[in-house]
Amino acid sequence: MINGIAGCQFMLAPMSDRYVDIILGAVAHVDTSRIESRTGKMGTVYRGRRADVLDAVKACLSYAYQPDVHMTLSMTLSEGCPGASCDIQTSVSVNKTASDERPANEAQIASIHFPVDCKFAYYPMGTPHYIEKIEDVIALSRTMGVFKETMPQATVLKGDVANIFDFFNKVMEKSETDDVHFIYEITFSVNSPSAD
Amino acid sequence: MINGIAGCQFMLAPMSDRYVDIILGAVAHVDTSRIESRTGKMGTVYRGRRADVLDAVKACLSYAYQPDVHMTLSMTLSEGCPGASCDIQTSVSVNKTASDERPANEAQIASIHFPVDCKFAYYPMGTPHYIEKIEDVIALSRTMGVFKETMPQATVLKGDVANIFDFFNKVMEKSETDDVHFIYEITFSVNSPSAD
Repeated sequence: MINGIAGCQFMLAPMSDRYVDIILGAVAHVDTSRIESRTGKMGTVYRGRRADVLDAVKACLSYAYQPDVHMTLSMTLSEGCPGASCDIQTSVSVNKTASDERPANEAQIASIHFPVDCKFAYYPMGTPHYIEKIEDVIALSRTMGVFKETMPQATVLKGDVANIFDFFNKVMEKSETDDVHFIYEITFSVNSPSAD
Repeated sequence: MINGIAGCQFMLAPMSDRYVDIILGAVAHVDTSRIESRTGKMGTVYRGRRADVLDAVKACLSYAYQPDVHMTLSMTLSEGCPGASCDIQTSVSVNKTASDERPANEAQIASIHFPVDCKFAYYPMGTPHYIEKIEDVIALSRTMGVFKETMPQATVLKGDVANIFDFFNKVMEKSETDDVHFIYEITFSVNSPSAD
């Protein structure tokens, strides 16, 4: 069931009067040649290899980032969804992508760094052992140095954008070995004026 | 395990230079006397009777609503979370609230109406029959007249704010009878300039 093909849908929310230009500019700037992509009223949908999808979301967040603008990006990221309900219909086939190619945006965003606050929840579906799996995921965030604290219904992370995305790439790779349909619900926040 | 006590955490994102005043003004305006409440950098947490929690979120969205501002509110809403990880520590006891009291904000927000776009996903945990349960929830959205369409990983709703919240109150009541830990991940969007 789990084949390393991930789907995500996300919404950018720049809290600025310039939000239209920031969102549309970032979305258009992302190289989506290796993924399926669709943008509509309820956000943007990507589907492809896990590393390509995470690369595209990281690029979109990075291109939307403005040092003076508080912004959130809320995202649903999943693998192993049974049936057709998680697919999007496009002319791009994700299977034609060789598994060892570097993600399309990697070189261009490698030098972009900024601090990110993040909260996430992990939902491994269809298994009575989901609590243990959630605890394993939280443990990995501690090991990788991005854990900040727990809050009701979520785990809070803090770190450079690169370290936060490295964590999600690593933890999804780990989740794939469980061979269940799983979902990560993630909210990134940058430049919040609120105190820690 | 399921006792009608719900927890939620949410973040408002008004896409306006005036976002601080809009968020803090709305959060402060909500009557939280019947729920536990905490606001921090990663959003606001409420806990209490399901009807009281939904009433408080609806009030917060309604007070933040500005006819000229595009805004999203993303929320995690759950019941039956095992252990203490979904609780918040406050001095308010949710158990002292009589179950037949009207929600605290109901009278004040009854006359506030505006159209809402909404997407949601339902996650019933720990059960192999989760797909059927998700399909039941989507069917109820059709019966109640708020279903718009499906998108990858989510169901899209459309309707007046009152009808959308009526749906979540009704569908959570239904979910409680399944007696499993369940989560609704919901994003409300108002005044989007994007076409349908």
